[in-house]
Amino acid sequence: MPSGPASGEDSLIARYFKPIATDPGAFGLDDDAAILKARGEDIVVTTDAVVEGVHFLPDDPPDAIARKALRMNLSDLAAKGADPAGFVLTLALHKADDAWLAAFAAGLGEDAGLYGCPLLGGDTVSTTGPAMISITAFGRVPRGRMVHRSGAGAGDRILVTGTIGDAVLGLDILKGGATAAALAGEAAARDVLIGRYRVPQPRNAIARAVRDHASAAMDVSDGLAGDLAKLCAASGISAVIDAPSIPTSVAAAGLLANGATGIAALITGGDDYEVLCTVPELRCEAFAAEATKAGVVVTSIGTVISGTDRPRFLDGEGREMTFKRLSYSHF
Amino acid sequence: MPSGPASGEDSLIARYFKPIATDPGAFGLDDDAAILKARGEDIVVTTDAVVEGVHFLPDDPPDAIARKALRMNLSDLAAKGADPAGFVLTLALHKADDAWLAAFAAGLGEDAGLYGCPLLGGDTVSTTGPAMISITAFGRVPRGRMVHRSGAGAGDRILVTGTIGDAVLGLDILKGGATAAALAGEAAARDVLIGRYRVPQPRNAIARAVRDHASAAMDVSDGLAGDLAKLCAASGISAVIDAPSIPTSVAAAGLLANGATGIAALITGGDDYEVLCTVPELRCEAFAAEATKAGVVVTSIGTVISGTDRPRFLDGEGREMTFKRLSYSHF
Repeated sequence: MPSGPASGEDSLIARYFKPIATDPGAFGLDDDAAILKARGEDIVVTTDAVVEGVHFLPDDPPDAIARKALRMNLSDLAAKGADPAGFVLTLALHKADDAWLAAFAAGLGEDAGLYGCPLLGGDTVSTTGPAMISITAFGRVPRGRMVHRSGAGAGDRILVTGTIGDAVLGLDILKGGATAAALAGEAAARDVLIGRYRVPQPRNAIARAVRDHASAAMDVSDGLAGDLAKLCAASGISAVIDAPSIPTSVAAAGLLANGATGIAALITGGDDYEVLCTVPELRCEAFAAEATKAGVVVTSIGTVISGTDRPRFLDGEGREMTFKRLSYSHF
Repeated sequence: MPSGPASGEDSLIARYFKPIATDPGAFGLDDDAAILKARGEDIVVTTDAVVEGVHFLPDDPPDAIARKALRMNLSDLAAKGADPAGFVLTLALHKADDAWLAAFAAGLGEDAGLYGCPLLGGDTVSTTGPAMISITAFGRVPRGRMVHRSGAGAGDRILVTGTIGDAVLGLDILKGGATAAALAGEAAARDVLIGRYRVPQPRNAIARAVRDHASAAMDVSDGLAGDLAKLCAASGISAVIDAPSIPTSVAAAGLLANGATGIAALITGGDDYEVLCTVPELRCEAFAAEATKAGVVVTSIGTVISGTDRPRFLDGEGREMTFKRLSYSHF
């Protein structure tokens, strides 16, 4: 059959993604490229991909997969002190399943609206392998104001948003691990932890506070221990962390208290999408106040010290903790 | 074994991609995000992905795979009249093979230099499926000057750069199809066509001429027939194409002459990465002169007419041609 201009791929894009590509710069996804208006600020660019079976599970809800893929990138923008400006999407699928695509696009469109980060364009391709979603997101910062991993100075306080370790516990539940057994009778706690794994809560509400007060920042995506080590290496400094200060959710704290998990698992597990930052002592009060006003909990977990040793995590008795691995790595 | 901050993924990035990420905005790939300096122009954003077994063959040379992935995106920028500004890369791999990665990064770095399009950042993930490379590329145009698919007006000439149909013949050779048999004794012709499939020649040299003279433009990636239909639909016009005017390489012309291929296969096959544009009659001379100066051959293949009928391709006797399909589609 002769096919018109609307091929399968084009009609898929028209049906599911055109309705959510409402930004004028997206040109209704009818062109080869999008326009990101630059108004003299710096454009912050970040890219993060998720692969079925690696970053999400095949039967995860498609709207949650979409939200996670976008929010991972939004989390990077937040940690860099940037305000969301838009994103492009690459979607590699084994087949075009209408119900899956409708739910995926709905979740993506809702989050694009919620975070003010419009879909600008993308590419849809077929693959014989697992599904993959790659997002490149854009943010704006005043010129020269992106917050780097480098910049931390000795004496700065080390702060983290939200709670650490929930996502790795949620994943363990979904995989039927020990956490599932430990929470066998506690559906609410299980749901909280699974929710934290499936749908991160990026801290874009404090991007401006990070920009105005942090000396260095990054988002916690591969595990707090490993990510802090990266920040320290980039800044040429070291750190001491008071492990019991690391904020945990009620669900995670319960599991810690009854020995069903350990702090090491929580801080090396990844998928937290919290902001880790260093803030000079004199700015901590203002930073905390602005974070509170934005509805984001921040917790001081340690101090930057001079030197190039790997950051040390001290337990409740002041003993240095050791970890089998610091964070997740793909290879 | 405890792992330091340099995990497998990080050391892979440090070894292969950091050396080619020389732009100051890439921060040596040591941060979570890159900076694209905006100087008041519009930022043009395009994204295109390639999947092993779909867009490239598993044993294609890795440097050619890298070049193709980048050049597909560069071709979009050229067609939009944009000057390259940089790109980010998502690389999904089954395993980290040193020889493959070294060659891939070398090809990518060479092209980044050749086209003035620096690597700004990226993400490297593992997959259990075929390799996939997704690139998001950025270009700059003066404000409001991106060339759209819409904008073609009745009476405009329709022009295309380079030659059409080589890549689909090259792919047919690699797959051991009829073209391989037809060129059994002609190694040079085979190499030309395979080269056109593996390493496109994006027409960034005429981006400015496109911006200054074309009323509408797009790159030919899915097949001339289908892509022209998309341009016509976006512009709300129709077109008449003189099929014998469509430029072909010496190798393709030989195959046409001896009946080993047909014009329909060449103009519906895709992977050309040439610029298709419409230029008002009064500007054609200037456009052609600037293209010649830039070393790019442009050929007039037809005329824009009013109406919304699908564009018509006429053969040497003025008869309308019909096609089984207009272009490649993933679903």
